[in-house]
Amino acid sequence: MATIVNRQVRLAARPVGMPKRSDWTYIEEALPEPAEGQLTVKVSHLSLDPAMRGWMNEGKSYIRPVGIGEVMRAGGAGKVVASKHPDFRVGDEVAGSFGVQEYAISDGKGVRKVDTRFAPLTTYLGALGMPGMTAYFGLLDIGKPKPGETVVVSGAAGAVGSIVGQIAKIKGCRAVGIAGGAEKCRYLTEKLGFDAAIDYKGEDVKAALKKSCPDGIHVYFDNVGGDILDAALARLAMHARIVICGAISQYCSTEPVKGPANYLSLLVNRATMAGMVVFDYADRYAEGGREMAQWIAQGKLVAKEDVVAGGIDAFPETLLKLFKGENFGKLVLAL
Amino acid sequence: MATIVNRQVRLAARPVGMPKRSDWTYIEEALPEPAEGQLTVKVSHLSLDPAMRGWMNEGKSYIRPVGIGEVMRAGGAGKVVASKHPDFRVGDEVAGSFGVQEYAISDGKGVRKVDTRFAPLTTYLGALGMPGMTAYFGLLDIGKPKPGETVVVSGAAGAVGSIVGQIAKIKGCRAVGIAGGAEKCRYLTEKLGFDAAIDYKGEDVKAALKKSCPDGIHVYFDNVGGDILDAALARLAMHARIVICGAISQYCSTEPVKGPANYLSLLVNRATMAGMVVFDYADRYAEGGREMAQWIAQGKLVAKEDVVAGGIDAFPETLLKLFKGENFGKLVLAL
Repeated sequence: MATIVNRQVRLAARPVGMPKRSDWTYIEEALPEPAEGQLTVKVSHLSLDPAMRGWMNEGKSYIRPVGIGEVMRAGGAGKVVASKHPDFRVGDEVAGSFGVQEYAISDGKGVRKVDTRFAPLTTYLGALGMPGMTAYFGLLDIGKPKPGETVVVSGAAGAVGSIVGQIAKIKGCRAVGIAGGAEKCRYLTEKLGFDAAIDYKGEDVKAALKKSCPDGIHVYFDNVGGDILDAALARLAMHARIVICGAISQYCSTEPVKGPANYLSLLVNRATMAGMVVFDYADRYAEGGREMAQWIAQGKLVAKEDVVAGGIDAFPETLLKLFKGENFGKLVLAL
Repeated sequence: MATIVNRQVRLAARPVGMPKRSDWTYIEEALPEPAEGQLTVKVSHLSLDPAMRGWMNEGKSYIRPVGIGEVMRAGGAGKVVASKHPDFRVGDEVAGSFGVQEYAISDGKGVRKVDTRFAPLTTYLGALGMPGMTAYFGLLDIGKPKPGETVVVSGAAGAVGSIVGQIAKIKGCRAVGIAGGAEKCRYLTEKLGFDAAIDYKGEDVKAALKKSCPDGIHVYFDNVGGDILDAALARLAMHARIVICGAISQYCSTEPVKGPANYLSLLVNRATMAGMVVFDYADRYAEGGREMAQWIAQGKLVAKEDVVAGGIDAFPETLLKLFKGENFGKLVLAL
């Protein structure tokens, strides 16, 4: 058999601010055969997620940082091309944490088989993958929305935010999305059923929240941090719940993180702010996935992926689309 | 009967930063007779609390601001000197929200009779009053400490903080207090049984927390905000609970409130930050008071008041002791 060349992107340096080309190295290496208990996946789609920026930093976090010289961590999907693992066969379509590379050798841990007769492979990186599970458990388990309440989500046109708003609607809540640009906002209200959308690039968010949330915000699902988190804090209803899922506005900043100056609104409104990490719900993904799949099948939930057809060389620039707010739905790089 | 002169301190202006003499007016007015259903209290002790600074600001909060020209709101204790109220008799000792004045006419709402055979009147403004209830319900209901966990409290030599740490010890936790000055710190460990005390004026709080909380902070009870809140956030244990009770470091600042830059530690540690206002527990004060009184009787809880014998003229300067960190235990002004 001819040697297969595996092209990889490895972390070369810890970025300051926006990751640059020089923070990455390209490696081509011969793909080894899988050992006993392993499988080889040909990765066709890479999941690009805001959290990846955090994984590039040194220091204690909810997951160990990617080491310098290591293949960059990333979710992905593809096809099994070789297997010495009892649970996987050649031809199986799978999703898992395969890294930024064209082929991954895996011991099967965290790899799940997916059914592309039901939904396209890319949806298993979005609504039926980590972002979907993040939205599902973050909103329902931590936000605990009650019918009739107002749920506000930032990064609302992104992979997680777009699902959060739709689940809120399914649960009988008012859904208000904050996103950048009129096109995204139109999409939220016209295609995804949000009750209102706020264009943070074109509107005063605080004033717009006042208008669109006359009874205050009962659940705020935050993906962005910064000034938008402060605007939401200023508009909390009594006993509001804030889910801290991410802070994309801060990830590439070279300034210190902007803490929420309005945090004393938690006191005034007897509100709660809680952090969530999706991995904690691993033993309930099946439950979440089942319900999400059902909603998709019933047409209640629209899954949207923004698939960039660039190949692995386009990884560095494509990743930056997240931090520039250029993606529309779940950002995926096709290899 | 000779006319009684009632001396009052009224709010003259909304202060910027530290309240100044000119933010107050002194009024002497003739004390009217109580109407049917009212009682007259001769106030002997005023409760001085950090929250009073917030009540002087305009804007939405958990309680309506004191209006310009109104008697300043304050807790107090004293003796009933006239009564046309069925539940109160002349001679009864009472505590309630009587305002900064020498005599208060009340409809009895929120006024409770106290028993000074059991504890001095001033203790009903401290451990057996609002600060005690704040500590009791804030720590137990929101912080939910479990035996063996580490509870850290800021403003630890103050009215609320000193009780929080002692209840933590009663519940089988490690108690670490943050206070200003070596004398206060010694008091916490030597007299109140705290396991450790950190002098924020003399030590690097972050480094000291690392040393005194080797397993991280499970419950952080915050009375101060600012840099100390950030230092605590940097040291959270997994699933930590932060109780936001106050932010005295920010109340008299003329700068915008310093938001906690380390708030993403909530995400990393799946932690929760919740605000509390003691008034929400009004229907459970009897329960809290009973247990606190029992602990005092058993010698498990030390109640300390810092009684200033200044009379009503000394109110403006005495109040400032809170914001300068000069009080030691519950600050009370004797009239």
